Amino acid sequence: MKHILAVAAASLAASGNAVMAQQTEGAAGGGRASAVTAPVSIADVGAVSPALAAFIQGRLQGEVWQRPQMRARDRSVVTVAVLVARNQPAEMPAQFALALDHGLKPAELSEIILHLAFYTGLGNALAAIPAARQVFVARGIDVDALPAASGDRLPLNEAAEAARAAGVQQNFGVVAPGVVQYTTDVLFRDLWLRPALVPRDRSLVTVAALVATGQVAQIPYHLNRAMDNGLTQAEASELLTQLAFYSGWPSVFSAMPVFKDVFAKRAG
Amino acid sequence: MKHILAVAAASLAASGNAVMAQQTEGAAGGGRASAVTAPVSIADVGAVSPALAAFIQGRLQGEVWQRPQMRARDRSVVTVAVLVARNQPAEMPAQFALALDHGLKPAELSEIILHLAFYTGLGNALAAIPAARQVFVARGIDVDALPAASGDRLPLNEAAEAARAAGVQQNFGVVAPGVVQYTTDVLFRDLWLRPALVPRDRSLVTVAALVATGQVAQIPYHLNRAMDNGLTQAEASELLTQLAFYSGWPSVFSAMPVFKDVFAKRAG
Amino acid sequence: MKHILAVAAASLAASGNAVMAQQTEGAAGGGRASAVTAPVSIADVGAVSPALAAFIQGRLQGEVWQRPQMRARDRSVVTVAVLVARNQPAEMPAQFALALDHGLKPAELSEIILHLAFYTGLGNALAAIPAARQVFVARGIDVDALPAASGDRLPLNEAAEAARAAGVQQNFGVVAPGVVQYTTDVLFRDLWLRPALVPRDRSLVTVAALVATGQVAQIPYHLNRAMDNGLTQAEASELLTQLAFYSGWPSVFSAMPVFKDVFAKRAG
Repeated sequence: MKHILAVAAASLAASGNAVMAQQTEGAAGGGRASAVTAPVSIADVGAVSPALAAFIQGRLQGEVWQRPQMRARDRSVVTVAVLVARNQPAEMPAQFALALDHGLKPAELSEIILHLAFYTGLGNALAAIPAARQVFVARGIDVDALPAASGDRLPLNEAAEAARAAGVQQNFGVVAPGVVQYTTDVLFRDLWLRPALVPRDRSLVTVAALVATGQVAQIPYHLNRAMDNGLTQAEASELLTQLAFYSGWPSVFSAMPVFKDVFAKRAG
Repeated sequence: MKHILAVAAASLAASGNAVMAQQTEGAAGGGRASAVTAPVSIADVGAVSPALAAFIQGRLQGEVWQRPQMRARDRSVVTVAVLVARNQPAEMPAQFALALDHGLKPAELSEIILHLAFYTGLGNALAAIPAARQVFVARGIDVDALPAASGDRLPLNEAAEAARAAGVQQNFGVVAPGVVQYTTDVLFRDLWLRPALVPRDRSLVTVAALVATGQVAQIPYHLNRAMDNGLTQAEASELLTQLAFYSGWPSVFSAMPVFKDVFAKRAG
Repeated sequence: MKHILAVAAASLAASGNAVMAQQTEGAAGGGRASAVTAPVSIADVGAVSPALAAFIQGRLQGEVWQRPQMRARDRSVVTVAVLVARNQPAEMPAQFALALDHGLKPAELSEIILHLAFYTGLGNALAAIPAARQVFVARGIDVDALPAASGDRLPLNEAAEAARAAGVQQNFGVVAPGVVQYTTDVLFRDLWLRPALVPRDRSLVTVAALVATGQVAQIPYHLNRAMDNGLTQAEASELLTQLAFYSGWPSVFSAMPVFKDVFAKRAG
């Protein structure tokens, strides 16, 4: 089984094939199999919309994924974030495998799913578990390769975090003290400091999820944070190109004025 | 089977375990089985993200669900509303069972699904049917325990309803007469008056669904209605804490300014 | 199998039955079967909420679908768009079959899925493939009946398209040049000109998807375009009635002020 998937993965890496024929298997290694929805093959797509099959194999895989403005590994990060944010498990096995082929580490994929448990809701992260487990089992990735619950944390920028916390406390400390407390304790003093995914990549995941879920009001803070964390404006711009295809034109057109405003204020 | 699930339910009640290993079964009692997506076990989660498994079993179940600001039964109502609003059937069997263990009546769960057919769309309610049926069958709950289509209704506050209807008619009577008519006939003169779920709980379900689906513009009317129906400000605030984990931080941060404004206006 | 489905389809056409008992089958014709989630039967619904079952069979199918303000074929277009936009595959086989029974051509259904790949994201379109393939196989519809990737295009209104492109270029040409380029090349100079779905129907699909996904900011442009493409105000209004039931009241109430504004500006 590993051999077959390895071949499929090699073929994926060569073709950038995001829609692949792949046998569904229960996650091995335990007595009970989690369900993984069967992926859609390009032949299935062609039997419903020849134009969509041609578009995927042509313009999308042959051109968009090859654009130099963003490397394939980051396009995979964005695409994975959209699938989790939109709760679309069918494409996850192929896109998770493709992400690993593009150089994403298993520990990073694990951490992206953890991150999105908080930024898209627990149910979305749980829906990604069977597909991730299937890919990890198929590649012989075991728990030793994954980030532990505890361990070292990145150094905290105390001044910046104090300013953030004070602002949120002033705004919402009375309205929602529980949210304010966990925002500090669980997110900014723990999740964001976990070293298995660098802050720039956490930001990339977060901003992609915000666009994909239409949470436009949260984009200014997180896009600024992303650029503070090292995402370039060219990458932020190309993020929108990738999202247009994977999360749809309307979500991107609703986000573009906010991106424009953030870019302008940082330049001004 | 009933015995096994009863044991699992007892274990759930003891642990607040939101992610459980549970055999999937077709809904019994009929010739055709509706599909119930297999739930994700905590072992599966741990095989992908040890940190997420530790978080669920520790902070989430051990601390958040135990906070005194909202009783477990109401946390279950909120969590169930998020799963239906977000169309996440995999977690439904465990969370529906947990809700019943927390004291939610089967008739109330039935009514929550009916309510969300109108407040999140018919497709979302239908996606919750197989899991609800599975739990009802496993516990020997038959249709006699569930609210009938017709029957007694709660008394209508005629003055308040007349004011609501007049406002909507003036605003949208020409733009969308069909919507205006059904809003009165189907929602406010029927659904909201069904006695199997008290108005305060309908409001709790509605506001949770609005936050989970990003329908921020509809929060002011429904949060005010919820508080008129008896939801306290402390409960409304803690609703946001529960939602942060189950529907994600961005949805809560987009809702907090609206909650703040409603709280301020009611206090002022 | 075809005979059984044809009978079911006839019954659907007679009853407007949106929830039907139907055997799930793997998509035939290939070695590998794509997964189609089992639909929910009206008996399943009745075993969870007798009131919801009665509502579907009574008011929804017996009254709403029969309203003269919009023909059944267009109601099906709207309903199909909601299912794809919301990623709800369980109801797709029955609703796709119903749409064909209401006179939608297979080529039009194929094209709606292609259109929504761009207006709701690729993952949503892919999630619709197994159900569409199942229905096409059951009815003996093969690829010759479906729109090809290339071929003739509708004539372009060069002046209107130049104005649109110039506006977007001025607004976002620097912010997101990739998005701007593909908006012109892939959407407005190709997708919208494909003759298998008339522009009025593409607009109907687009506006329904915008409401169903809460993309309110994109409604003014597309509702105006829809009415320029021949959608009447009475149809646009009734679209909201159909959406209230299938995408939920809050999504419609968030859209109504925007519809009102567009109607007023066109009248003024």
